[in-house]
Amino acid sequence: MIHQGGRKKIVVIGGGTGNFVVLRGLKKYPVDLSAIVSMADDGGSTGVLRDELGVLPPGDVRQCLVALSDSSRLLRSLMNYRFENGGLGGHSFGNLLLSALEKVTGSFEKAVEEAGKILYIRGRVIPVTMHQVRLKMVLNNRKILEGEAEIYLSQEIDQGYKTMYLEPYPKVNPRVLEEIHHADLIVIGPGGLHTSLIPNLLVQGVSEALRKSDAKKVLVMNLMNRKGQTTGFRTSHYLQELVRHLGEDIFDYILINTDPPPPDLIASYAEEGELVCNDLEEERCLFAGFLGGLSSVPKKDLLRRNLIRHDSKKLAKELMNIVDHL
Amino acid sequence: MIHQGGRKKIVVIGGGTGNFVVLRGLKKYPVDLSAIVSMADDGGSTGVLRDELGVLPPGDVRQCLVALSDSSRLLRSLMNYRFENGGLGGHSFGNLLLSALEKVTGSFEKAVEEAGKILYIRGRVIPVTMHQVRLKMVLNNRKILEGEAEIYLSQEIDQGYKTMYLEPYPKVNPRVLEEIHHADLIVIGPGGLHTSLIPNLLVQGVSEALRKSDAKKVLVMNLMNRKGQTTGFRTSHYLQELVRHLGEDIFDYILINTDPPPPDLIASYAEEGELVCNDLEEERCLFAGFLGGLSSVPKKDLLRRNLIRHDSKKLAKELMNIVDHL
Repeated sequence: MIHQGGRKKIVVIGGGTGNFVVLRGLKKYPVDLSAIVSMADDGGSTGVLRDELGVLPPGDVRQCLVALSDSSRLLRSLMNYRFENGGLGGHSFGNLLLSALEKVTGSFEKAVEEAGKILYIRGRVIPVTMHQVRLKMVLNNRKILEGEAEIYLSQEIDQGYKTMYLEPYPKVNPRVLEEIHHADLIVIGPGGLHTSLIPNLLVQGVSEALRKSDAKKVLVMNLMNRKGQTTGFRTSHYLQELVRHLGEDIFDYILINTDPPPPDLIASYAEEGELVCNDLEEERCLFAGFLGGLSSVPKKDLLRRNLIRHDSKKLAKELMNIVDHL
Repeated sequence: MIHQGGRKKIVVIGGGTGNFVVLRGLKKYPVDLSAIVSMADDGGSTGVLRDELGVLPPGDVRQCLVALSDSSRLLRSLMNYRFENGGLGGHSFGNLLLSALEKVTGSFEKAVEEAGKILYIRGRVIPVTMHQVRLKMVLNNRKILEGEAEIYLSQEIDQGYKTMYLEPYPKVNPRVLEEIHHADLIVIGPGGLHTSLIPNLLVQGVSEALRKSDAKKVLVMNLMNRKGQTTGFRTSHYLQELVRHLGEDIFDYILINTDPPPPDLIASYAEEGELVCNDLEEERCLFAGFLGGLSSVPKKDLLRRNLIRHDSKKLAKELMNIVDHL
């Protein structure tokens, strides 16, 4: 399927830093790129803005905008700048930009569009829904976790959960269905399984559209498990969890890293989680070294959990290899 | 004197809404335009940012940037948008932009430059000093007023004052001296006499540069007195006050409005001040109707004190008439 002057259409689904890596790599290729972003975030600066101003969550959208931005390094730093003191403390400037634009334009969609113009983005950033939603999870022990922030911090999820849902059950943003329908390639992951990836699939109509789409679908497997969330998960568990919410196994390709991270990094990460071991041996699995070098990590991101991550160039190259053979 | 491809160089000195009117009018002409802006503001959102973040005062600079901006109406509205709730309550977005840029770039001057690029400004906005200063005023009754905000709200200034000064006594931004030196026309006013105009003259070297400059100097006379500040002032009092801080009478032209405002507006304004009456009858006085129509007042500015104000087009036309005869 050919679009926009012969360019292939790639749709990336997620939210948070996982999306960032994929988008930053792909934006350097001549493709028609869209990022579909979860609207479940309610932690940190984003949570405060939702509560105090009643705006939609800007955090994940901001990260995608920065990933796709062709503006100066300075403008991109500005978007991620966090105020340190006073009433502004903890807010990232980009979140304030999106929230102020939502107030001035009267619509979050318009706000995202205008921010995209200011940042000269390549491609589109599309919120999965335009409704105010909260992510909920009912654990096997019947405890209910309320909000993405609470779920993110929980250490009990690996004991199993009965169900996850968004409240209220939201209508999908119609543009999302169009994007999925017209895509040549759809990329899901990497990213927080319960907090970034699955929340997109809980929006009315998204999983169905993915099942029906003629696009090739790629799962980019996470590198690390998160303690208390996906402890002991192997690659098959990630696949299984996504299939549970997708309704069927839609994936044509699964990208699995084979680079071993430096042992001292794994050790220093032990408090937060361990490496994802692979137990999938199928033809659709593409094994390669996807690990990012330390030199590519911006200083401000030097949290342990960000030290072991995908290399955006290597990922993009593999994804483009798939696209070129469509 | 000819600059930048034959364009005449106009330097506007002030701060606040007075500057806004002059700059908005002049930016439509093919002139080389600079705004020199007072750094004494310490009230409202600007005061909070100075105290909490240690940044230089963004408020007056923001207004000049918006006045000179060629960007979309939306982007200009965004700059003036004020958050209403929570920790952000009262902050205008433009102030946050300038403060975040100052933090990211490490310099207020660079911040102003970058904000100017984002807003596609015609001309330059130049802070009069790069030092953190506070405006002080010693009243005739020996009371000391500390800070521009306190001076702005005082009702005793019309009883006379002994001295005004900036603390610490600041070095001038060297670019200001260059601008004044190379100017063809220098415009002072309209604007708050003690809070927007005089603070520029209190910076080391500014008055001297103005006295030495070969440019033609124009004083745009205020329309209204402010109660407790300039009660009963006639045009000659304004001139006298500026000359007190300039060291000599530098003005080649004085623009004085002759349009009578609607009587009901004057009545509704009575709590805040009264019309400035003219007592100057000199050849350099240019009398004309400079009053802005009500239809030109943006809704958000519908405060009484903004209803009686200059028309930016009429002012600019008269100023360009002077420029064309240089």
